[in-house]
Amino acid sequence: SFATLDLDRRQRCGFPEVVFAEGKTVEWLEGAVRRLVEAGQDCYATRVSAEQSAHLAAHFPLAELDRLARTFWLPQPTERPAPVGRVVVVTAGTSDLPVAQEALVTARVMGAAVDLVVDVGVAGLHRILRQRERLTTADVVIVVAGMDGALPSVVGGLVDCPVIACPTSIGYGAAFGGVAALLTMLNSCSAGVCVVNIDAGFKAGYVAARFVKRLQTPSARG
Amino acid sequence: SFATLDLDRRQRCGFPEVVFAEGKTVEWLEGAVRRLVEAGQDCYATRVSAEQSAHLAAHFPLAELDRLARTFWLPQPTERPAPVGRVVVVTAGTSDLPVAQEALVTARVMGAAVDLVVDVGVAGLHRILRQRERLTTADVVIVVAGMDGALPSVVGGLVDCPVIACPTSIGYGAAFGGVAALLTMLNSCSAGVCVVNIDAGFKAGYVAARFVKRLQTPSARG
Amino acid sequence: SFATLDLDRRQRCGFPEVVFAEGKTVEWLEGAVRRLVEAGQDCYATRVSAEQSAHLAAHFPLAELDRLARTFWLPQPTERPAPVGRVVVVTAGTSDLPVAQEALVTARVMGAAVDLVVDVGVAGLHRILRQRERLTTADVVIVVAGMDGALPSVVGGLVDCPVIACPTSIGYGAAFGGVAALLTMLNSCSAGVCVVNIDAGFKAGYVAARFVKRLQTPSARG
Amino acid sequence: SFATLDLDRRQRCGFPEVVFAEGKTVEWLEGAVRRLVEAGQDCYATRVSAEQSAHLAAHFPLAELDRLARTFWLPQPTERPAPVGRVVVVTAGTSDLPVAQEALVTARVMGAAVDLVVDVGVAGLHRILRQRERLTTADVVIVVAGMDGALPSVVGGLVDCPVIACPTSIGYGAAFGGVAALLTMLNSCSAGVCVVNIDAGFKAGYVAARFVKRLQTPSARG
Amino acid sequence: SFATLDLDRRQRCGFPEVVFAEGKTVEWLEGAVRRLVEAGQDCYATRVSAEQSAHLAAHFPLAELDRLARTFWLPQPTERPAPVGRVVVVTAGTSDLPVAQEALVTARVMGAAVDLVVDVGVAGLHRILRQRERLTTADVVIVVAGMDGALPSVVGGLVDCPVIACPTSIGYGAAFGGVAALLTMLNSCSAGVCVVNIDAGFKAGYVAARFVKRLQTPSARG
Amino acid sequence: SFATLDLDRRQRCGFPEVVFAEGKTVEWLEGAVRRLVEAGQDCYATRVSAEQSAHLAAHFPLAELDRLARTFWLPQPTERPAPVGRVVVVTAGTSDLPVAQEALVTARVMGAAVDLVVDVGVAGLHRILRQRERLTTADVVIVVAGMDGALPSVVGGLVDCPVIACPTSIGYGAAFGGVAALLTMLNSCSAGVCVVNIDAGFKAGYVAARFVKRLQTPSARG
Amino acid sequence: SFATLDLDRRQRCGFPEVVFAEGKTVEWLEGAVRRLVEAGQDCYATRVSAEQSAHLAAHFPLAELDRLARTFWLPQPTERPAPVGRVVVVTAGTSDLPVAQEALVTARVMGAAVDLVVDVGVAGLHRILRQRERLTTADVVIVVAGMDGALPSVVGGLVDCPVIACPTSIGYGAAFGGVAALLTMLNSCSAGVCVVNIDAGFKAGYVAARFVKRLQTPSARG
Amino acid sequence: SFATLDLDRRQRCGFPEVVFAEGKTVEWLEGAVRRLVEAGQDCYATRVSAEQSAHLAAHFPLAELDRLARTFWLPQPTERPAPVGRVVVVTAGTSDLPVAQEALVTARVMGAAVDLVVDVGVAGLHRILRQRERLTTADVVIVVAGMDGALPSVVGGLVDCPVIACPTSIGYGAAFGGVAALLTMLNSCSAGVCVVNIDAGFKAGYVAARFVKRLQTPSARG
Ligand SMILES: Nc1ncnc2c1ncn2[C@@H]1O[C@H](COP(=O)(O)O)[C@@H](O)[C@H]1O
Ligand SMILES: Nc1ncnc2c1ncn2[C@@H]1O[C@H](COP(=O)(O)O)[C@@H](O)[C@H]1O
Ligand SMILES: Nc1ncnc2c1ncn2[C@@H]1O[C@H](COP(=O)(O)O)[C@@H](O)[C@H]1O
Ligand SMILES: Nc1ncnc2c1ncn2[C@@H]1O[C@H](COP(=O)(O)O)[C@@H](O)[C@H]1O
Ligand SMILES: [Mg+2]
Ligand SMILES: [Mg+2]
Ligand SMILES: [Mg+2]
Ligand SMILES: [Mg+2]
Ligand SMILES: [Mg+2]
Ligand SMILES: [Mg+2]
Ligand SMILES: [Mg+2]
Ligand SMILES: [Mg+2]
Repeated sequence: SFATLDLDRRQRCGFPEVVFAEGKTVEWLEGAVRRLVEAGQDCYATRVSAEQSAHLAAHFPLAELDRLARTFWLPQPTERPAPVGRVVVVTAGTSDLPVAQEALVTARVMGAAVDLVVDVGVAGLHRILRQRERLTTADVVIVVAGMDGALPSVVGGLVDCPVIACPTSIGYGAAFGGVAALLTMLNSCSAGVCVVNIDAGFKAGYVAARFVKRLQTPSARG
Repeated sequence: SFATLDLDRRQRCGFPEVVFAEGKTVEWLEGAVRRLVEAGQDCYATRVSAEQSAHLAAHFPLAELDRLARTFWLPQPTERPAPVGRVVVVTAGTSDLPVAQEALVTARVMGAAVDLVVDVGVAGLHRILRQRERLTTADVVIVVAGMDGALPSVVGGLVDCPVIACPTSIGYGAAFGGVAALLTMLNSCSAGVCVVNIDAGFKAGYVAARFVKRLQTPSARG
Repeated sequence: SFATLDLDRRQRCGFPEVVFAEGKTVEWLEGAVRRLVEAGQDCYATRVSAEQSAHLAAHFPLAELDRLARTFWLPQPTERPAPVGRVVVVTAGTSDLPVAQEALVTARVMGAAVDLVVDVGVAGLHRILRQRERLTTADVVIVVAGMDGALPSVVGGLVDCPVIACPTSIGYGAAFGGVAALLTMLNSCSAGVCVVNIDAGFKAGYVAARFVKRLQTPSARG
Repeated sequence: SFATLDLDRRQRCGFPEVVFAEGKTVEWLEGAVRRLVEAGQDCYATRVSAEQSAHLAAHFPLAELDRLARTFWLPQPTERPAPVGRVVVVTAGTSDLPVAQEALVTARVMGAAVDLVVDVGVAGLHRILRQRERLTTADVVIVVAGMDGALPSVVGGLVDCPVIACPTSIGYGAAFGGVAALLTMLNSCSAGVCVVNIDAGFKAGYVAARFVKRLQTPSARG
Repeated sequence: SFATLDLDRRQRCGFPEVVFAEGKTVEWLEGAVRRLVEAGQDCYATRVSAEQSAHLAAHFPLAELDRLARTFWLPQPTERPAPVGRVVVVTAGTSDLPVAQEALVTARVMGAAVDLVVDVGVAGLHRILRQRERLTTADVVIVVAGMDGALPSVVGGLVDCPVIACPTSIGYGAAFGGVAALLTMLNSCSAGVCVVNIDAGFKAGYVAARFVKRLQTPSARG
Repeated sequence: SFATLDLDRRQRCGFPEVVFAEGKTVEWLEGAVRRLVEAGQDCYATRVSAEQSAHLAAHFPLAELDRLARTFWLPQPTERPAPVGRVVVVTAGTSDLPVAQEALVTARVMGAAVDLVVDVGVAGLHRILRQRERLTTADVVIVVAGMDGALPSVVGGLVDCPVIACPTSIGYGAAFGGVAALLTMLNSCSAGVCVVNIDAGFKAGYVAARFVKRLQTPSARG
Repeated sequence: SFATLDLDRRQRCGFPEVVFAEGKTVEWLEGAVRRLVEAGQDCYATRVSAEQSAHLAAHFPLAELDRLARTFWLPQPTERPAPVGRVVVVTAGTSDLPVAQEALVTARVMGAAVDLVVDVGVAGLHRILRQRERLTTADVVIVVAGMDGALPSVVGGLVDCPVIACPTSIGYGAAFGGVAALLTMLNSCSAGVCVVNIDAGFKAGYVAARFVKRLQTPSARG
Repeated sequence: SFATLDLDRRQRCGFPEVVFAEGKTVEWLEGAVRRLVEAGQDCYATRVSAEQSAHLAAHFPLAELDRLARTFWLPQPTERPAPVGRVVVVTAGTSDLPVAQEALVTARVMGAAVDLVVDVGVAGLHRILRQRERLTTADVVIVVAGMDGALPSVVGGLVDCPVIACPTSIGYGAAFGGVAALLTMLNSCSAGVCVVNIDAGFKAGYVAARFVKRLQTPSARG
């Protein structure tokens, strides 16, 4: 077979291997999903195209598909634990929404409680300042922004929890497909900011969920 | 005056403004430290040169200076709370040590309990595998690596907590002063990895400490 | 001779040719100054090194030298008109001060009234918000920032006059000597922001002065 | 709702929030326009595609659509003040025209009087020299150029007002989608030149309009 | 004629000139194949599109076409020597398979014995460790990986034969079309790793085959 | 201790861990050498500075130091096997010699027989053509070149063995410290060329030695 | 009108303004051609698409269209002088032919005598060496190459006339659309090589023609 | 010996191999000069440091050393032919002079007649326009410029002979050590412009001299 699925990952990392659907055939995807199901594991896929989505929906009618986030989610049919912690996802513009949604769905799928604040970029500062209450009660904030990528620096100065900055490819010219925003975020003058890849909403959500899930380990509770 | 210290930051962000010493005159540094002391705040400075270090040591004999990490630390003379959580700092090579030490000191200064694992790069895999116990008990792992920057991807696949990857400028030629390692880390095939700037041990430690300090908030303990 | 000074520039552009001192011999500089003086023109030089500065000070005792801005200024001994307009120079950090001072001196030398606001970066937002009065009364604001270069986007959203953003080479790692800040500013989500070269305080001040001097032309006054 | 329109921007910045249409659905755009209209504000959108344009034209028959500039303009049905100042837009080639037109429409929409000079690149110098009269009477000149981006340096040496250089993505090979022209402009040997993003006619026009609108404030008139 | 085929290359280099099909017309390709056949040489072509493939299949029914590898192979109708050595091709992900297959087919066509190990990336380390037997018996290992490109560093530390690392353009954002993986591999902390161009499975297979074919020269056997 | 030497590497990879001396203190180096000696292993170090060299020479008088290659070599005092295979190192210019020498010493230290051809760049083609005999008898050729890096493409077309191209940082301007030569080599129109990092003579020699040492394994001899 | 054709260019530069057709409407092109014809000037256009070509062919039946070179050529119906000098155009591969043809047509249109040598890249050196006679009799050689761009360095060492190197975008991966070849050429170890933009066959031909046309000026003949 | 001087180059290329002195020991240089002298060839070296210069002056008292150009020139003691053609070297600023002088000395040494025009950048256009007579009588013009590199485009539009553009590393920030000027020149909107490497005055002079020397060949004179 052409795949060596890492069925042990749930054990080591707390969550099964996630399928990166981009560029894969629908047959390959269907096969990978089946193998995870047979192994009794949840199946989560990202970057699912419209065509892949239709194929998977037909074969796995119980799955949840999010067209904005481009995700596929087929959990085990067992009861799920209550979501933990508080992950707040913030976007600078409305065009950043698909990436933000990918972060949000990923964090939720992994067991985190999530909240979304949209279109509060720094050009109109009162918009983010009005949301301070929602921000300061977060356990981790994900900030999604393209163009100048300035919002995470502002958010990082308003909260005391970790901020995960996710640059997007929104913009043109010297935005260089998200590189400008990425560099802004790596050089944030706010110290509490770490960064993920351009358009990597998935990673932002994944890291955030890893964070909040530790809040429930015995050591945290002790 | 030429500085507008953010004395309110401790309130908003849980830790006072940190002084970035690089390129500043010793007089300016001394003045900034005094103002923080007068405001009853801890004073922490990073990227302190040998000359700056000597000057500050002479004027603030109670401060702790770490020459490997290039840090200056002058806490309030009050009793300090016990360190919380468990931050493990890992390096790929021995040359990455100064950056790792900056991360470690920063996390400790901010209240985290820390542990250090040195020189366990992927070319000799048994070295990191031998440390699995120390890794899997961590609340957050900081991985410091230059050259190919491959270690965070391996660590990310061994643990279920967040991994903060910190690239270093160690290497030559197409290492481009840490850019190669930075890109490796941003594109890590392990989903649980977020990234900070090249040589930014300070930021890695800061984000890690922000995280473990939440383990003690009522919501976490509840 | 090795120079073709543009003695007609004052006529065309409203200000004599400015000498870019970097890398030039003190003899060449002295000669250029003499020729401008003989032509009855003000002489302004930028990027003057300590050694060049000492040499010029010895030969032109009436000149004003600013060591922070690294400028040399030898005006005609005639009465100077009152400064016009209101140029506000703002810096994100204290390390940005030399570039800001070059902008400020340049604008003043060219006839503008100037004001300086230092160390009000976005990580502590109350600092810039406290200065809104000084900002909203400006005819043009110059914002000088390194690292993430996020401040011009915030300022651009607070005022209705043009904002000139000047990136500095302050920072390390992925700051790439000011490139990160430059890209942030070029991609500013605030529409009223234009940009000059990295560390080009001179240009920021020059453009600002060109602008405020038009406020006094008949058409403006009419 | 998925948008947080900044309805306060007109108050702070002198002009309502402008809609960046690129990549947005026609439903979202229609909704945003309605909300601005309901708030009694002018509605201006840029980067409007042919499809978006058709949709908006059908729903807002009173709007002005410029297909060359790709703009949408729906002003309040109140009397508009006479245009102020004099913004001259200059292009190096004919291919730069769409970007120049975006600049021109933006400046006009914001209240500036505008003039256009096309296809006067430096390879045939007499073309720009013949336009000196129109240039020297300008309050601000916008120079739009791709390929080598050399024209702003020439214009900057002919006038005493600010020059806003706007690089375009016209060119091939080492033009790198406008990066060559952008760098030329940032390094202009003419001191009076500031720069906006590649293809950012919108920004060039916006900054220019901010400039000329100050010519009418009491302080300018005083 | 528009081609100067290097019919002497088999003599000098041990293998005839290989046709790079990308962007060429089907007529040109057909002509080049005929000329090689007439010269009594094997004909091998890479980067063959679906359309080119169909055309060549129709005209050369004896040829072997591999749609995954995108190769065309028309050997002389003589008996072929037994494959030599042992080339192991390893991929990090399943998306790297087409590039790996191009390497594998190329090495086989040139006379090497080949083996394939798929989808054993470093995020699930047990997968590659389970294949150690197959790796340590190799004469040369080709490692194909995109995204972080970390796998060659791990493999290089497990074997004592040369490792040829082949980066792929799989990934997004700061993967920059394979540049991130390329840099990782050039900076590998494992000394036994050399590198070929992004997506250059052909080159990886070619170099590997050149190597194993020397195992049969008298000097090697002596 | 601050080092985790990989004493098992000789077993896995056929050669002990090599020390990268750049930036390390003489005390650290001395300690690392001692530990390798105590473990009964050969000790090889590269990028040894003049100061490090003097220190190590004083403490390990039996070591061989090569100042051109900047290497340190302290073998076990046992008899060494006869060198195997034939590695030919070729340079384009005379300035490339230090990197070539690092490759040559490394290959020799690892057990290969070596030969050196200097200053035969493509601008005077007869120089390399005159050496064809020495090239065609090689088992592997290392080509070291800076500036345009064109020589490996020429050599690759003259031989049937693998070519390892090593770019150097020799050159100026758009040579970008070896990047131009590196890209040339990665894009070589000769298929038999693989590449190592800029100035990485060590890696070129290491990979070459891994190659020729397999010529003696039973499978090769069989 | 939207164009300011430089009708004086023939006078200053010896050849009328050339039309760059890329991205222009067929109406605009038709108009520009008409204006040049009316002014009694030759009309030459490059980068003409298939659609533009069809339109122009219909309206100007006397024009010569070259589909490989993508050029349009409508000379004045007067007798043309005999071609001068000897421009030899050389390509490394067959894929470089369209760019080479653009160079060749341009040089011919401007009055030069031209010759073409195709597919003689450095991987099979005998191919170029066989053409030495044609090369050494040239007045200027244009070398067109993609991928490694190594051929101009070899040619530059074989002739005593100027060599104009023209990189092409042929290649993949780290060829970066011709950047690798461009850098190779700029860093050529052959001193007699100058360079034009990627895919700029037009410029190569234009500069070459300027060269050979001077061979006929009185000063040259004197 | 460590050098393979190309003593045949004079025969093939019309001028002996030129020594690139940068980074070479004085002993090596002295030896190379001696060998050229013994072979009865002129010896020309570029990029000669002050220390190298002093050494060579002591050993070869008849040599001409130019400290501005950093060249060494030791011709055969035979009568030299009269200089041919007319090479005009133009600089944009005074800081570009060393590179221009390297071009000028190189062209002169190779037998060309040369002329120098300094400090006539585009910010004061009348300066270059005043020199039109000297430009239009040139056989080839070399234009040396840093910062925006705009001058070659202007010169290219004023003359009908070839223009060789030479970028310099003068400038700061986004000048990127001459890259900005290089890109400007590669993208020149004037078609008659070819380019050499950054700071490569040597190459500009070399190509120019190759060209003017053809003006004397029989074919040119015929
Ligand atoms: N053509 C344009 N280029 C750059 N920014 C623009 C453009 N048009 C509108 N904007 C800005 O984009 C912002 C709106 O972004 P969004 O929230 O995504 O709709 C506003 O602040 C505008 O100032
Ligand atoms: N700090 C500066 N940054 C950029 N350009 C400058 C600076 N100071 C002076 N200049 C410009 O440099 C030019 C003089 O260059 P040069 O002929 O080399 O002396 C003048 O046109 C000035 O406008
Ligand atoms: N997939 C490939 N990648 C790189 N080079 C190739 C590839 N396939 C063939 N080649 C080389 O391309 C050259 C032929 O180029 P051309 O003259 O354009 O057909 C031959 O020297 C081959 O070695
Ligand atoms: N300033 C220079 N820039 C570029 N190439 C040069 C320069 N001076 C000499 N060369 C070339 O450098 C080569 C000699 O290099 P090397 O063998 O290292 O001495 C000769 O082919 C010269 O044509
Ligand atoms: Mg918005
Ligand atoms: Mg180590
Ligand atoms: Mg501060
Ligand atoms: Mg035009
Ligand atoms: Mg996989
Ligand atoms: Mg040489
Ligand atoms: Mg070919
Ligand atoms: Mg000047």
